[in-house]
Amino acid sequence: MPSAIDELQAMIAELKAELEDQKTTNRHARDRIERMSAEVVDSNPYSRLMALQRMNIVKDYERIRDKAVAIVGVGGVGSVTADMLTRIYTFKRCGVGKLILFDYDKVELANMNRLFFTPDQAGLSKVEAAARTLSFINPDVRIETHNYNITTVDNFDKFLTTITESGIQAGQPVDLVLSCVDNFEARMTINAACNEKNLFWFESGVSENAVSGHIQFIRPGDTACFACAPPLVVAENIDERTLKREGVCAASLPTTMGITAGLLVQNALKYLLNFGEVSDYLGYNALNDFFPKMTLRPNTQCDDRHCLLRQQEFQARPKPVVEQKEEVSDEPVHASNDWGIELVSEDAPATESTSKATDSTQVTAGLRLAYEAPEKETTQATPQAAAGEAAAEVSLEDLMAQMKSM
Amino acid sequence: MPSAIDELQAMIAELKAELEDQKTTNRHARDRIERMSAEVVDSNPYSRLMALQRMNIVKDYERIRDKAVAIVGVGGVGSVTADMLTRIYTFKRCGVGKLILFDYDKVELANMNRLFFTPDQAGLSKVEAAARTLSFINPDVRIETHNYNITTVDNFDKFLTTITESGIQAGQPVDLVLSCVDNFEARMTINAACNEKNLFWFESGVSENAVSGHIQFIRPGDTACFACAPPLVVAENIDERTLKREGVCAASLPTTMGITAGLLVQNALKYLLNFGEVSDYLGYNALNDFFPKMTLRPNTQCDDRHCLLRQQEFQARPKPVVEQKEEVSDEPVHASNDWGIELVSEDAPATESTSKATDSTQVTAGLRLAYEAPEKETTQATPQAAAGEAAAEVSLEDLMAQMKSM
Repeated sequence: MPSAIDELQAMIAELKAELEDQKTTNRHARDRIERMSAEVVDSNPYSRLMALQRMNIVKDYERIRDKAVAIVGVGGVGSVTADMLTRIYTFKRCGVGKLILFDYDKVELANMNRLFFTPDQAGLSKVEAAARTLSFINPDVRIETHNYNITTVDNFDKFLTTITESGIQAGQPVDLVLSCVDNFEARMTINAACNEKNLFWFESGVSENAVSGHIQFIRPGDTACFACAPPLVVAENIDERTLKREGVCAASLPTTMGITAGLLVQNALKYLLNFGEVSDYLGYNALNDFFPKMTLRPNTQCDDRHCLLRQQEFQARPKPVVEQKEEVSDEPVHASNDWGIELVSEDAPATESTSKATDSTQVTAGLRLAYEAPEKETTQATPQAAAGEAAAEVSLEDLMAQMKSM
Repeated sequence: MPSAIDELQAMIAELKAELEDQKTTNRHARDRIERMSAEVVDSNPYSRLMALQRMNIVKDYERIRDKAVAIVGVGGVGSVTADMLTRIYTFKRCGVGKLILFDYDKVELANMNRLFFTPDQAGLSKVEAAARTLSFINPDVRIETHNYNITTVDNFDKFLTTITESGIQAGQPVDLVLSCVDNFEARMTINAACNEKNLFWFESGVSENAVSGHIQFIRPGDTACFACAPPLVVAENIDERTLKREGVCAASLPTTMGITAGLLVQNALKYLLNFGEVSDYLGYNALNDFFPKMTLRPNTQCDDRHCLLRQQEFQARPKPVVEQKEEVSDEPVHASNDWGIELVSEDAPATESTSKATDSTQVTAGLRLAYEAPEKETTQATPQAAAGEAAAEVSLEDLMAQMKSM
């Protein structure tokens, strides 16, 4: 029965090929998990979301499904950013609606000292490797990848078209752009694009020595753009690549990158889902756990003509458009409160800095406060301040005038 | 040739079984990657570390290889904590020396809204799933898993023995215990063990509504232990499980968990590698990006007798033992400084809170500072303060006295 043997041998060859395939393929090749049921049990992610909604933190979490976010740079910060946005569960579905990833690097073993990528992905393009992992974690998120450098003239046009037309609805812009790049040229490119198209974006960065980071929310015309107060390297038109030293690349800590990504996504969520207070600028110094906050107003002498246009538009508006905040009820988390515990709001006692000396005398002698609540009015831009009390804010002009007078 | 057919069929059965095995096994089954070379090129993680050392942030990063860290709870915070410690690269080797993982839960699909675990791991024990992924990322880290609940009487003894004898050298204690659990009973268990064995540990937590978190560094006898100022549930001896409501589990955000894990590991690294300032307590409020810091002194009426013993020992020491800080040179990152840029230290102008009013008058009229540097002396425990200026610190007794006088 040679035909039977042939058949069996063919079957063996096929099985061997399939086995080889399984061995070399990455975990993405496995079957997608089935869509999670809507049952409310502890093993179901939806109950987590019901919890967030019952706690009145966010009125309608599900809106995250209607949001498209572009992430430029899928490295130490960008990959964790994408991971977090993919894992945000909503009431009935999960994850952000659409992620658009831009990068032109490949995964290297040197990237293993950041989170997210795994050694088996070395050699793959970062966007492709990220897309596979993210789709495996959550098949509900639509992922679009762009494997090119956005700073070349041709690619800039492609980038501009993508962020303007690849939103949740075709032809609509994305809801937010997140910059997770590691160089000024790419930041200036994102800045130019978002100024031109009037798109809101967050800039982020980790310092060369890996022990500090920051995020900055840029709303064209409303807050300072990246060109309003450019780093000296940019202002002096120096090729930043000449600053990199032979054989030494920037330091890297997964901790600092993870924290920066966390602060970035948390503030992006607050903006997209309209809860809490979005920080305009938030810094992080790892050495002493110091987190400065501030707001920078636009520079009326900005070199970017689209920034000046956006500033004019912003000034021309009768009142800055501020979205209606969600109503957050004061209902306690636990309906019964047998012990009569009272929570005091952290931001309620907003004292003027000039009256601090007086305040501190109210503390019993020999004691001082462990910490003070953040002063809302110094750190947050309010519509009132923008309209009438501009002098009380730190504007670039004021700062420059102050510097000149030194 | 029925024997040949039998043989071929047996081979097919074997191949099918192997194929099934490959399909179901996780990615850990793949070959370990080769040890990375020591070449200093951009694609090599060691150059990242050389960077950190050249920048004088840490004198000898490689010491992380000599550290053993126990992580209790491998959930939303603990898994990311383990991931970060696994990916810390050192000069010649990489990752923490040894990780000891404690948990008794299984991975569930509901955990996908936290970072780290992937859907294919559902059903595996958390410690086993974590160990596989971490070994795959970095085979150099020794990983020991304990799949049991530490709060039972028998397991408590096993836990106590493990943290006391499973250090880098057999018979030596671990260098640090990190608590990433989600209930008070487990926290009290870790507290009792670390008080008894005089081990330093960090407590961490994320609030039920997922929008705040904290870390706390507990050094028995030196700072308040978990029993010194217990939550009411613990103080009143209430079964916390009765507080959990049917069908509702705690809310969860990968952002808050990632940030809490990042702050935890960053402070653990500062302690283990002796750089920067370790925060005794650091809070995080996601809604307004507020990060309170403080130090709590031990309660002389603490219910834990080992805590009282540790307090006596601490008081009896002629001077608190403070490790010598690494010398951090003031050498600039870039040797050439053509533009004469000067960096002003953030913690240098430590002003007394009573002199703030005077200070603020130095700012040009109409301006105010965007932010103030943190006041070192209110937030950090110094040996001087502990020795002679205890009254200036917030102690539980002072606070209680103050509360009574209200």
